[in-house]
Amino acid sequence: MPDFSTLRVNRERLLASIDLLSTIGSTGDGGVNRPAYSDADLAAREHIRTAMRDAGLDVRIDAGGNTFGRRAGSGSETRPIVIGSHTDSVPHGGRFDGALGVLAALEVARTLADADVGLAHPLEVVDFQNEEGGLIGSKIATGRFDRANLPLQAASGFTLAEGIARLGGDVSRLDDAKRAPGSIAAYVELHIEQGRVLERANANIGVVEGLVGIRYWEVTFAGVASHAGTTPMIDRRDALLAAARFIDAVHSVVTSTPGRHVGTVGRLAVSPGGANVIPGRTVLTLELRDLEHAVMESLFEKLKARAKSIAAATGTRVELVPTVTNDPSPTDARVREAISEAARSLGLVPHLMVSGAGHDAQNMAALGPSGMLFVPSVDGLSHTPRELTVDDDVVNGANVLLATVLRLDV
Amino acid sequence: MPDFSTLRVNRERLLASIDLLSTIGSTGDGGVNRPAYSDADLAAREHIRTAMRDAGLDVRIDAGGNTFGRRAGSGSETRPIVIGSHTDSVPHGGRFDGALGVLAALEVARTLADADVGLAHPLEVVDFQNEEGGLIGSKIATGRFDRANLPLQAASGFTLAEGIARLGGDVSRLDDAKRAPGSIAAYVELHIEQGRVLERANANIGVVEGLVGIRYWEVTFAGVASHAGTTPMIDRRDALLAAARFIDAVHSVVTSTPGRHVGTVGRLAVSPGGANVIPGRTVLTLELRDLEHAVMESLFEKLKARAKSIAAATGTRVELVPTVTNDPSPTDARVREAISEAARSLGLVPHLMVSGAGHDAQNMAALGPSGMLFVPSVDGLSHTPRELTVDDDVVNGANVLLATVLRLDV
Repeated sequence: MPDFSTLRVNRERLLASIDLLSTIGSTGDGGVNRPAYSDADLAAREHIRTAMRDAGLDVRIDAGGNTFGRRAGSGSETRPIVIGSHTDSVPHGGRFDGALGVLAALEVARTLADADVGLAHPLEVVDFQNEEGGLIGSKIATGRFDRANLPLQAASGFTLAEGIARLGGDVSRLDDAKRAPGSIAAYVELHIEQGRVLERANANIGVVEGLVGIRYWEVTFAGVASHAGTTPMIDRRDALLAAARFIDAVHSVVTSTPGRHVGTVGRLAVSPGGANVIPGRTVLTLELRDLEHAVMESLFEKLKARAKSIAAATGTRVELVPTVTNDPSPTDARVREAISEAARSLGLVPHLMVSGAGHDAQNMAALGPSGMLFVPSVDGLSHTPRELTVDDDVVNGANVLLATVLRLDV
Repeated sequence: MPDFSTLRVNRERLLASIDLLSTIGSTGDGGVNRPAYSDADLAAREHIRTAMRDAGLDVRIDAGGNTFGRRAGSGSETRPIVIGSHTDSVPHGGRFDGALGVLAALEVARTLADADVGLAHPLEVVDFQNEEGGLIGSKIATGRFDRANLPLQAASGFTLAEGIARLGGDVSRLDDAKRAPGSIAAYVELHIEQGRVLERANANIGVVEGLVGIRYWEVTFAGVASHAGTTPMIDRRDALLAAARFIDAVHSVVTSTPGRHVGTVGRLAVSPGGANVIPGRTVLTLELRDLEHAVMESLFEKLKARAKSIAAATGTRVELVPTVTNDPSPTDARVREAISEAARSLGLVPHLMVSGAGHDAQNMAALGPSGMLFVPSVDGLSHTPRELTVDDDVVNGANVLLATVLRLDV
């Protein structure tokens, strides 16, 4: 193997490409508004395909609407090394979440082309569709997508079926997009951390040991709606009081159990919702995240017991219905080691950590060895126009991605 | 004075009018959804005006959007006896709350016309606007409305200013709707009890000795919206957790202080509202009711202190903004006596009681002697489609209202 230890990405070109992509769907205050299937999302992907062609990659859109740009290998290996992320954003999100991983992967391909470096493996740069709406693109590519979800509406207002058609996919032959287990040499994704772990550890590169599983429930408390003025406190069956106590219980159970898990109530609807009416019904979301199924299950059992005793004390009924489950996903040990060595070889400090967010890498693990590297997010902010990763960290991430690809190509 | 002791309302006509009005904004399960200024609210008021004209009343809409139907007196008295209530409802409310008082008043006017009974006083049937949103119509009619509240949003989504225009009022000449103190002979309002006092006392007619005061606040907790997966519990500034603890505090402060007061949180909005986003902002309503100002003030001071300590503990900021205040209001002794005598003359059992609900009668007390009579609500349910007053109680209430008007006309 030739010595590529001095090979580096083009700093100015990479930074300029981030600025340029952020003009598509710009929020005007540093962020981007590119929810999946929106006009801005379509424009960003077309921009990426043009850049891929300029970098000499063979471009294709699969039946699921994902964009791939492929560079041929030397022929000795047929399974590709896949690198990339996604260019869709949450509504009014930041310009790094997802976009950085795609643009850094593209910059790796450009750098290899500029230096005329031939890899044994084919290299594929991927821009997955609708990551923010539930890892839809990578689910399709890995056969984990349930067609029953096609009528579901994305944040842009389009259904998944409509969105796939808008992106140039074809829902009638969705199975064509499915890739076989064992068909890739590796998947490596660079992403911003979206938290403060690296900042606190004073580290440059996060090496992801695993992605947490996520479980969602819809929790409904049913009481009796009645008049706030004429129903004495003792006669009330207040569904919001019950929900309030449950929200406090989620916090206390989650924080009193040691571990890295988190628990969140992010949505709550009260009905009827009049200021002078005792709430008769509340519906809220419960979300738990951890690397271990057993931890989430144990937390949920505690919370279910608390919900039942709260319902009994408030004269309400409670129902907890599971909605969405994303399994925890460990990363591949060899990929983790390649990332760590690559970081050290560049004089950077790697830090082993858990990903609290879900990413396409957890689906790609079904196809072959997968891993992720993180770069720091200033103040841990993400999913907001204030999201920021400083230039040095952007460039460090891309160089580690490059060096990791070279290490995995042996 | 001629003997009208055998005069009775038309039972079938009254019951049919309740059924007919309940088809406007029907919830399909016995209730009505006619929040102030909604299309259904406008349609119900137009329906009432048509019925007023059919009953031979002179119809007008005042600048505040209230509907009046007037029957001339014999000329010996110029100050009218005013009877009525309101036809707007809470979201998904019942078909009796408010509507009964308007339709019974209309039935009284029809009965007098059918029997060709001339009263010394003019008789006015009133349908006040937006009673459920804070007695807005009667406040305007009595000069108690603060124009600063015009931009506030009602449950229908329209502001008070927009709503008044939709009802045919004119915010530019709101003072024209104001009536002078001493300008009415009496105001009498029939309403459902909305509680279980009459049911428990085995009485037919509630004679209201006074109406509780009501104070509303809008309470906002501001935290920081962030990613539920990547923000450890310790770093969170969760505005919904703060709101939940405050809701529990309202219940505990209110129930641990002896008295007949009540405290309610009926509305709560969470933003951004994603299941996977930590809430950055919650806005909720706080309502306190009691016959004494001092009691409400003391409760509020305790709750404000609790809100501040909750905000400090959760890393959020809190703001408590007073929105609407309705003063406690005793009723007029002569009107109370007239209602009690009227009930007894019909062989019914009157019962002296406090109104825990606010009603337009408390504002009308500023213009002249005012009083209220209640009829029983089955199981005390109100502000729900399950709200029910049985036919006999509906007819009893209308007959007592008729007999009370005749007694007050001397």
